[in-house]
Amino acid sequence: MQKMSRESPNPIGVFDSGIGGLTVVAALRDLLPAESIFYIGDTARVPYGGKSRRTVERYSVEIGGLLLAEEAKVIVVACNTASALAVPRMSEIFKVPVQGVIAPGAEAAVRATTTRRIGVIGTRATIASGAYEHAIHQLAPEARVFSAACPLLVPLIEEGLFEDPITDQVLARYLAPLLAEAIDTLVLGCTHYPLLRRAIARAAGAGVTLVDSAKNCALAVQSLLATEDLTAPPSRLGRLDVALTDSTEGFLRVAQDALDLEIGDVQLRAVQARE
Amino acid sequence: MQKMSRESPNPIGVFDSGIGGLTVVAALRDLLPAESIFYIGDTARVPYGGKSRRTVERYSVEIGGLLLAEEAKVIVVACNTASALAVPRMSEIFKVPVQGVIAPGAEAAVRATTTRRIGVIGTRATIASGAYEHAIHQLAPEARVFSAACPLLVPLIEEGLFEDPITDQVLARYLAPLLAEAIDTLVLGCTHYPLLRRAIARAAGAGVTLVDSAKNCALAVQSLLATEDLTAPPSRLGRLDVALTDSTEGFLRVAQDALDLEIGDVQLRAVQARE
Repeated sequence: MQKMSRESPNPIGVFDSGIGGLTVVAALRDLLPAESIFYIGDTARVPYGGKSRRTVERYSVEIGGLLLAEEAKVIVVACNTASALAVPRMSEIFKVPVQGVIAPGAEAAVRATTTRRIGVIGTRATIASGAYEHAIHQLAPEARVFSAACPLLVPLIEEGLFEDPITDQVLARYLAPLLAEAIDTLVLGCTHYPLLRRAIARAAGAGVTLVDSAKNCALAVQSLLATEDLTAPPSRLGRLDVALTDSTEGFLRVAQDALDLEIGDVQLRAVQARE
Repeated sequence: MQKMSRESPNPIGVFDSGIGGLTVVAALRDLLPAESIFYIGDTARVPYGGKSRRTVERYSVEIGGLLLAEEAKVIVVACNTASALAVPRMSEIFKVPVQGVIAPGAEAAVRATTTRRIGVIGTRATIASGAYEHAIHQLAPEARVFSAACPLLVPLIEEGLFEDPITDQVLARYLAPLLAEAIDTLVLGCTHYPLLRRAIARAAGAGVTLVDSAKNCALAVQSLLATEDLTAPPSRLGRLDVALTDSTEGFLRVAQDALDLEIGDVQLRAVQARE
């Protein structure tokens, strides 16, 4: 197998702390069916959203190494928390390109807004990092960004409560301060959130455009592969391999039911969280 | 410092995946003010409740080793998931006594029930382990045990939504099948749940006795120390030291506001999760 040839059959390495990154995988499968994907979900240490920068960096570098052991030609950080906290460190350490979800989401939000009033929802760690504000202000310094940490959404999604009055009430409470600021665009700043897209659209109302970080990340990967001459030969159909750091039933259920992804055997990988 | 003398000034080692074990610490402080406590919260890998037996065993043995490095005279597993999955393995490995929360909770439930219809709520992993059913049936083979996994309660508690209509609705939904079985006793099978005691009591109704695993675990530790001649000299006031495996703001807020615990500097400990 050739590495880093002008056409590369090597897999795209994708990781997330858990199942959320599968929304990015689904978007990549739609857009780039010839690409193979090797996905690692760090389910032994999920969630990352409440953890410190140092811990998230350490976990992300470790999982990046596991993806490189699978000969990944590019690493996609399909997790907003890890994108916000760990992409700079990963880019220092690894020679392959590292693509996070923040920059594509920020670009899409700036393209979508007409009033320059943008809302961002995400985990506690993503929102506290200010990564979206920073990325949006680099593109549109005059934009106003209103952010809300939504720590209950991931547990609700992992319970499969996509259409549920409890989820609707939680969303109404989280979105109220953003809607009061008359945002016209809302960034779903967590890769879990596309699974809740319908309920979020209902809570946000027809006047708000939703920006899906999964879909925009897949578009950025497509453009990165083209620029770096790393696209897979078009004649083949890519494989999807999945490894988890802990066995979880919920993972496959969500992958198959909500995202319609076909996954074969799931492998287990040990993680060694050294200082 | 003497180890394993007839009176031991060494600390009681207590651990949990996060903040829930502080309810056991609060109960121990009330009951045994002369005892020093060294607490470790594995906040880098919280929560344990959705993880596999093997992973929970591995994490628990590792944290147990850190407590022994602090000269703990006994290890209290102040986490129902770790008690359900890892106490047997820890008891094989460590020479000091290992006290979990399941057995004391099961004993208290059997003492409390008059109809022998007992409900148990806990994390997905605790309920799937069947540990409470097993412990209750050893004491009362004729008892009927009705269990419900309540995975949203820990996130709601960690958000501080102790008195909130959303929490009330989630509780009503989780408890409905248990109340339909006419339970007269409900085991709070997760050390987080005493923080939600008032809301749970409201949802369960006046006819149901709540069994608090934190308080019953503290009573079991008192009895264990007496049996093993490990009680601290009574003249002193015990220290409370806390170490976390990741820095988290929420931890201290809950410890101080909801449990009225006085904690000095919080230390950080690195964890090395080797296979």
